[in-house]
Amino acid sequence: MMDKAVVAIVGAGKIGQIHIDNILGMNNVELKTILDVYTDHLQGTAYEKAVPIITNNPEDITNDPEIDGVLICTSTDTHAAFIEQFANAGKHIFCEKPISFKTEETKKALDAVEKAGVKFQIGFNRRFDRHFRKVQETVREGEIGNPHIIKITSRDPQPPPEEYVKRSGGMFMDMTIHDFDMIRYLSGSEVKEVSVKSANLVDDRFERNNDVDTAIITITFEDGSLGVIDNSRQAVYGYDQRIEVFGSKGSAEAENERPTNVRINTKEAITVDHPKYFFLERYNDAYIEEIKQFAIAILENSPIACSGEDGLKAELLARAAQLSLEENRSVPLTELIAKA
Amino acid sequence: MMDKAVVAIVGAGKIGQIHIDNILGMNNVELKTILDVYTDHLQGTAYEKAVPIITNNPEDITNDPEIDGVLICTSTDTHAAFIEQFANAGKHIFCEKPISFKTEETKKALDAVEKAGVKFQIGFNRRFDRHFRKVQETVREGEIGNPHIIKITSRDPQPPPEEYVKRSGGMFMDMTIHDFDMIRYLSGSEVKEVSVKSANLVDDRFERNNDVDTAIITITFEDGSLGVIDNSRQAVYGYDQRIEVFGSKGSAEAENERPTNVRINTKEAITVDHPKYFFLERYNDAYIEEIKQFAIAILENSPIACSGEDGLKAELLARAAQLSLEENRSVPLTELIAKA
Amino acid sequence: MMDKAVVAIVGAGKIGQIHIDNILGMNNVELKTILDVYTDHLQGTAYEKAVPIITNNPEDITNDPEIDGVLICTSTDTHAAFIEQFANAGKHIFCEKPISFKTEETKKALDAVEKAGVKFQIGFNRRFDRHFRKVQETVREGEIGNPHIIKITSRDPQPPPEEYVKRSGGMFMDMTIHDFDMIRYLSGSEVKEVSVKSANLVDDRFERNNDVDTAIITITFEDGSLGVIDNSRQAVYGYDQRIEVFGSKGSAEAENERPTNVRINTKEAITVDHPKYFFLERYNDAYIEEIKQFAIAILENSPIACSGEDGLKAELLARAAQLSLEENRSVPLTELIAKA
Amino acid sequence: MMDKAVVAIVGAGKIGQIHIDNILGMNNVELKTILDVYTDHLQGTAYEKAVPIITNNPEDITNDPEIDGVLICTSTDTHAAFIEQFANAGKHIFCEKPISFKTEETKKALDAVEKAGVKFQIGFNRRFDRHFRKVQETVREGEIGNPHIIKITSRDPQPPPEEYVKRSGGMFMDMTIHDFDMIRYLSGSEVKEVSVKSANLVDDRFERNNDVDTAIITITFEDGSLGVIDNSRQAVYGYDQRIEVFGSKGSAEAENERPTNVRINTKEAITVDHPKYFFLERYNDAYIEEIKQFAIAILENSPIACSGEDGLKAELLARAAQLSLEENRSVPLTELIAKA
Repeated sequence: MMDKAVVAIVGAGKIGQIHIDNILGMNNVELKTILDVYTDHLQGTAYEKAVPIITNNPEDITNDPEIDGVLICTSTDTHAAFIEQFANAGKHIFCEKPISFKTEETKKALDAVEKAGVKFQIGFNRRFDRHFRKVQETVREGEIGNPHIIKITSRDPQPPPEEYVKRSGGMFMDMTIHDFDMIRYLSGSEVKEVSVKSANLVDDRFERNNDVDTAIITITFEDGSLGVIDNSRQAVYGYDQRIEVFGSKGSAEAENERPTNVRINTKEAITVDHPKYFFLERYNDAYIEEIKQFAIAILENSPIACSGEDGLKAELLARAAQLSLEENRSVPLTELIAKA
Repeated sequence: MMDKAVVAIVGAGKIGQIHIDNILGMNNVELKTILDVYTDHLQGTAYEKAVPIITNNPEDITNDPEIDGVLICTSTDTHAAFIEQFANAGKHIFCEKPISFKTEETKKALDAVEKAGVKFQIGFNRRFDRHFRKVQETVREGEIGNPHIIKITSRDPQPPPEEYVKRSGGMFMDMTIHDFDMIRYLSGSEVKEVSVKSANLVDDRFERNNDVDTAIITITFEDGSLGVIDNSRQAVYGYDQRIEVFGSKGSAEAENERPTNVRINTKEAITVDHPKYFFLERYNDAYIEEIKQFAIAILENSPIACSGEDGLKAELLARAAQLSLEENRSVPLTELIAKA
Repeated sequence: MMDKAVVAIVGAGKIGQIHIDNILGMNNVELKTILDVYTDHLQGTAYEKAVPIITNNPEDITNDPEIDGVLICTSTDTHAAFIEQFANAGKHIFCEKPISFKTEETKKALDAVEKAGVKFQIGFNRRFDRHFRKVQETVREGEIGNPHIIKITSRDPQPPPEEYVKRSGGMFMDMTIHDFDMIRYLSGSEVKEVSVKSANLVDDRFERNNDVDTAIITITFEDGSLGVIDNSRQAVYGYDQRIEVFGSKGSAEAENERPTNVRINTKEAITVDHPKYFFLERYNDAYIEEIKQFAIAILENSPIACSGEDGLKAELLARAAQLSLEENRSVPLTELIAKA
Repeated sequence: MMDKAVVAIVGAGKIGQIHIDNILGMNNVELKTILDVYTDHLQGTAYEKAVPIITNNPEDITNDPEIDGVLICTSTDTHAAFIEQFANAGKHIFCEKPISFKTEETKKALDAVEKAGVKFQIGFNRRFDRHFRKVQETVREGEIGNPHIIKITSRDPQPPPEEYVKRSGGMFMDMTIHDFDMIRYLSGSEVKEVSVKSANLVDDRFERNNDVDTAIITITFEDGSLGVIDNSRQAVYGYDQRIEVFGSKGSAEAENERPTNVRINTKEAITVDHPKYFFLERYNDAYIEEIKQFAIAILENSPIACSGEDGLKAELLARAAQLSLEENRSVPLTELIAKA
């Protein structure tokens, strides 16, 4: 067994830098290389000192036999090509979600992964959140019996900039995709049908870009149980991330995480902390854990916690949701799979 | 102003007796008469002593000029006829939900009420629950801005007996009807469309009687906002009654009510009380309050808190839900109203 | 067995009227007589209609063979004489706390009770609070093992008027006396020693009257375990009433009671309800329950839930606390008992 | 400004290794040297690779001009000598609590620090806990007015081994010392008097070693306000660490920290997570933060968050508590200061 998994980061933007910072504090991962088209913004930063190679040439990764795995953190439209390139070079791959905006492209990329026999992990970090994980474990251990209703509340603290909205692939592909993965993770059953009711209530920037900002997504699972996700692009009181699994023997609920457990009692009000506001505060531990687990999978040749298949399925659900919205009807997953 | 509203109870079954017990402790209501087809079960009870007239003849009410109002607590199929009879006699009417199982019948009964010019209150007791009322007031006062998403969790602690299921009118008419009224009460907007996904996961007695036991009901309001109700006939941990209104400036949530605020900490577990188990424990104060308010409306000739119109609309929603289930599609309310 | 216990109320002031209102809604108690020196303030009230006899002559009670019990709700300095008078007349007695401000007087009154063989209940209503009762039952059932530390937080929402302070007997006799009884109730062991640290931080009216407004009272029990009470005459956020029993196998805690379980989430704050503010809101159910239990003890000739002995012991503890404060030392209960 | 503070760890036992692990993940601290009498247990560990110098010779620190600061993590009886030695060598010092078991020794060590003009931080990690810090900030900002009562609940999950008890210096010096510092930190006023009631209820190992396992410590502050600490060596449900500051305008409370926010609802029980069990789980972030702050104080030549003076005062309070216990009386701090 190796001591540390040696990795490269592809794309040193916002999410890439989160992973870089996390990896620099980890015991089982060594960051050898950063690849980015533009590397100017990294000059003079601590990264220059801490990371041996900073380059804009992918071959510095593909040709480096020391590199075990690659973390793809670039914009979505470049994912598929990078996956193929690095898989062909025999590198294990961690890729931010979604794999691509097109099912065929995603499948092609995953075929390359399969052919190369490398590991592939999709960046559904919430599977590594300790609250959600405890709910999932409680369900798996049968403590609440068979799931009957799974509920996810997932609301952003504030809408993203319009530029982001334009290239986001739409709310379902950008935001709900995490919830689609979570609901599959919690259920243990596959989705049979998706129904969407949506609205534009938060901000005009969504409607202008043919997108929605508020939605209720109902899911029928193959085992007959039900699920429901409610989304909003703006919860002014903070990042609202709650789940509940209700079953034949009980239920398990995860409340929001707050910075402290302090309650302040005055004549005017009894107050507690707001939910953590930024996704990074809320899910920081989960971001760390997902990369640690990726490294363990490489080092111990053990299974990946969320696979390319999981990535593909969440994408299909996002696509089904979009179709349900457009045609105001329930969309069976088989329809999407047939098309794909 | 009169001191007390003088009332008669029609139907001394389970719900009727709840009202009798409550009224006997009230300051602004006097119970003069109990009408029931069978009065044997009341012989020798405290009711005999406490209530002046116990009869099986409706004319003992219609002909009694002292009686201001009548509480109709019989089985649903007798509601409409009683409403007409007592309205024609000039009595104010409180009627348990639903008014009837057929829209035409409900409308005919409400027409009689209107013609007679008497007051009519439908028994949506939950509007009088102090937790839900506080949420509604918070919404009305604009504290959370415009509602975007309204969520109701409504799960019974255990399924009713099969005999009850047979005559219940189906889960939507029997159970969800309360949630339909609550969601209208909280929203302030009327419902535009209803979509249902349902399941049979709790007990065979529902499927045998062509009924469901689990459901997600999605609602689109006329103002563009969304609502979602989740129902189950069996939450083994207690009667689960929670609501949440999420809006442009925040949200308001009502948690379950527990018998005590005691937490017990042992090596084995940290436990708090279960939610109150029986509907009567949970909503007892609301049952009292609704009758007090009915009496005030009579005594002060003030408006009724939940009207016949509210009763009719909740019935239409129940019917729309049933149609949505049967035809697996979203059902616009206009469709039901047109039919009716 | 009688149907109802017939009682008289002695003293129709604030606390007397609370009991009158409660009794008028009870099934097992009948209020026949109200005795007060001044009865003018009752003229024209609903009490005149609801209560057969309103008088300023105690003999209307002592000579009335129908009256089973008397509730003494007058000012403390009159308690002892009334107790003797009504006990001698063979009436069961419920008396508000404290029995008197002087130990000898209290003992003399209780001697009369004993000689007369009537029942005597002291008005420690908090023993009937459902939250505290659940904690006590949890302790009694051994669920948390042997108690090691018992904690009571007891803070009034606002200081009483100066006139009240003057005649209150001091904070320990007026306010802490409830906590002294509660700590004995929770412990099951008798108090060995009392130590007080106190302060004047809330308002000058206390210091002016040789009283304190803030205190920490530490208790050593005969079984070696410890207790601590913290008192303040002013908790601006509401009536703060919490208890905790910590033992060898765990702990049980009762939190404050709030009007609703609603949480409101806005950009500015996450708020929950204040604790109930008035003692009457907080302990209303307990006030009802204590009288119901008094009636049951009369009707079924069953034991009293909190006895004259309990009243006496709480008074001794209040006196020990005062002595500890004055002499800045721990005061063994034996010292007080020897004196008494 | 330097990039990183270069430090040495003295004593690679339990607490020393905690600091080593934490420092290896920090950006502003570099661990150059580990000093221990025995270094065998470090052979073959990751420390050997990660830390340049592992030695049993203190001169490898005193003579190394690169080393800015020293963290003293050895047994208490060696603290004072090491402090003097390293202070004389011009090294900044972080020392675990207590400085020593004898006031004169502590003062002598602090004198050496002062003469050398180096920084000195005492290891009261709880000041860096984010929950407690928020309470303290709320108090400092005047949000709850003037403090009237400060309460600390501090209970260990299980008693330490008897060997540890023997050399612990007694419960007050070993365990309550943290609470003494916390209560000073929260109050902002100095302690005037200490009163203790204690008990032996948990385990014989304490009594055998002339120690106690349960205590209520009451504190009078110079500003007239009050404080109370309750301690137990065994809370079977987990590490119980709560604080509350109650003042003229309200109160602020910090509840225990739990691993997750998950609630599980079954027929049997409604459960939430236990409080975190080990001090290291509970205070891990605080251990990291205190060293980061020590490094910042070195790098920016800024004031120390908790000083030698704070260490001395907490020791005096522990000593006053012991004296109060032995002589069953309130002990004024002046008495101890006079002696010292």
